[in-house]
Amino acid sequence: MYNFKFSIPTTIYFGKGQISHLDDLKQSGDKVLLVYGGGSIKKNGIYDQALKILEGAGISVTELAGVEPNPRIETVRKGVDLCKTNNLDMVLAIGGGSAIDCAKVVAAGAKYEGDAWDLVIHPEMIKAALPIYSVLTLSATGSEMDEFAVISDMTKNEKWGTGAECMKPTMSILDPSYTCSVSRKQTAAGTADMMSHTFENYFSFEEGADVQKRFAEGLLKTMIKYGPIALDDPNNYNARANLMWAATHAINGLISAGCSPAWCIHPMEHELSAFYDITHGQGLAILTPVWMKYVLNEKTAPVFADYGRNVWGLEGDDDMELSDAAIEKTADFFFKTMEIPKNLREVGITDQSNFEKMAEKAAAGSVGSFVPLTKEDIIEIYKAAF
Amino acid sequence: MYNFKFSIPTTIYFGKGQISHLDDLKQSGDKVLLVYGGGSIKKNGIYDQALKILEGAGISVTELAGVEPNPRIETVRKGVDLCKTNNLDMVLAIGGGSAIDCAKVVAAGAKYEGDAWDLVIHPEMIKAALPIYSVLTLSATGSEMDEFAVISDMTKNEKWGTGAECMKPTMSILDPSYTCSVSRKQTAAGTADMMSHTFENYFSFEEGADVQKRFAEGLLKTMIKYGPIALDDPNNYNARANLMWAATHAINGLISAGCSPAWCIHPMEHELSAFYDITHGQGLAILTPVWMKYVLNEKTAPVFADYGRNVWGLEGDDDMELSDAAIEKTADFFFKTMEIPKNLREVGITDQSNFEKMAEKAAAGSVGSFVPLTKEDIIEIYKAAF
Repeated sequence: MYNFKFSIPTTIYFGKGQISHLDDLKQSGDKVLLVYGGGSIKKNGIYDQALKILEGAGISVTELAGVEPNPRIETVRKGVDLCKTNNLDMVLAIGGGSAIDCAKVVAAGAKYEGDAWDLVIHPEMIKAALPIYSVLTLSATGSEMDEFAVISDMTKNEKWGTGAECMKPTMSILDPSYTCSVSRKQTAAGTADMMSHTFENYFSFEEGADVQKRFAEGLLKTMIKYGPIALDDPNNYNARANLMWAATHAINGLISAGCSPAWCIHPMEHELSAFYDITHGQGLAILTPVWMKYVLNEKTAPVFADYGRNVWGLEGDDDMELSDAAIEKTADFFFKTMEIPKNLREVGITDQSNFEKMAEKAAAGSVGSFVPLTKEDIIEIYKAAF
Repeated sequence: MYNFKFSIPTTIYFGKGQISHLDDLKQSGDKVLLVYGGGSIKKNGIYDQALKILEGAGISVTELAGVEPNPRIETVRKGVDLCKTNNLDMVLAIGGGSAIDCAKVVAAGAKYEGDAWDLVIHPEMIKAALPIYSVLTLSATGSEMDEFAVISDMTKNEKWGTGAECMKPTMSILDPSYTCSVSRKQTAAGTADMMSHTFENYFSFEEGADVQKRFAEGLLKTMIKYGPIALDDPNNYNARANLMWAATHAINGLISAGCSPAWCIHPMEHELSAFYDITHGQGLAILTPVWMKYVLNEKTAPVFADYGRNVWGLEGDDDMELSDAAIEKTADFFFKTMEIPKNLREVGITDQSNFEKMAEKAAAGSVGSFVPLTKEDIIEIYKAAF
């Protein structure tokens, strides 16, 4: 096990009705920037509920609405302006990972003199942030309990992850019942996203980190059990609750501290989203089995075989056979059980002309991963996923 | 899954050489109470190392040495006096759970006007505490990352657990190499203690908390794998590291939030320690298989059978047979593999005269547990463990 620092400063209120704890925001001041997306929170009543509680707590609300599914730097800049102009005390995101990611960089941008894009491409420049709160409405990114945010500049086809200790939310409210209205498509994509976070942390050659590896397997088993249940029975509370709690732990440091290499599927997918604005979780699902097959060799087979044994319950001694079977299980789960589009053409990517540019950036973004990938490797993976 | 609040404010520095982070203490002031036990930290050099770093950080040290294995209220009172008299800013425990537990109640006592024993029997009276830091030298209690402390008043044969959010340490240093010199006896007892914490949280009728249950199984598998390795190869870093990290997560809220009933083995064991001052982990190991057999019935068999399947890899459809086999595995692990004394007589308890008094207190302390136990039940369990 490698040396590590472990720190989870975010307080979580988990369960039905926990939104009442929004009145805790008064510990950070009395002026909040409310960040949300396309307005589904107005349809399902969460918006009205939140405003009532904030009003009751004496907190005035400034709004940043319309955050995009792949949040844009232009929206972040608007939020930063609102915070600075109105001297706001904190930010509150209500939504999924996009709203929370946007709120995080707004919170950091409010404490920074230059352009917020600097903080996206240079995480080390993030020195402070306004207190960040969230009410989660979609289980996927884990942004509610981690330090990361992903922001896009579509004018440059750029999508980058950033992060800083001060961007970990102060408090997040996780009410699984809020996710019951999430569509089949987004439920499946969210499940693929949280599984991908777990995979990125799980596949490594570090053999002395049993706690983390067993935790990761427990998360994967939980996601594999409850993803299909949420798809077929969207109001199943236990399914929504387990997916929500599993997604959070997939990326809050619990399974990565002490063992995780750099990520590689995410950098490859970020390029897909940056050039084609596809749904992140679908892109991850499409790339994952292709990547697994591409990096499978004598050296990686024992790792994939353990994945097959411990997550899928496969039996046998031949690591290569077990690896093949585990990869097939993974693909079947994504594309058959969860009904995710199985290749890039099915999500509307009709040409390969950008693959070279994309691969170059993805290779730079994944240095130090489980199996190092060159630009040429990544082009092959894109082609195989096409 | 039940509603819950999840909060882990403790920062952990994990790994070799992390003691250098002791200079972070200056964030809490410049006067610390150093709390430790019988002086083993002087033999192995940790004491000198710590004092050098604290001196370098400009922190003056007042000492509370000689904390007992089952820490006494008299020692806590001494510590509280030292903090109040010298106007100390914080407490730092170097040791195992006993030193940390003592330091926690000292820290709370320093902010309380009355007698510290009030805070042991009335946790709700704990309103504030000095900042608490720890350097862990024994993997067992998990006190380094939780809110709990257990303190004894041997003049009254009383041993009670207390706890408060403000008693969660600010920062703990977990260097597995510090535990390489822990004796066979204490390594085995520590492994039994951390397994017991996991069991107390794990055995419940809550079926909708898969994340927590899979995590608990992952911890148990890790402890069962590495306990014997640490016993036979005490300098095995990965064994010490996994036991240390597993012990911490067994009781920091991760596997209990949203699903755990009240504990029942610990209240029974606390009476053994309070009356006979035995090693806590040995008492837990002795009681556990006896308790499992006593509460095994048609209703609990599916829970114990899942334990057998998911932790011990047992196979079969008959829950009662699987439960019996899982209980036997547990007993064999404690008493054969880990060489823990197998009954109360072997740890020097030679009469049963206190069982009735003890059982009455233990029954009061375990209300709401997995299987409710009466005073009579507990007397039977003590007798069967004799």
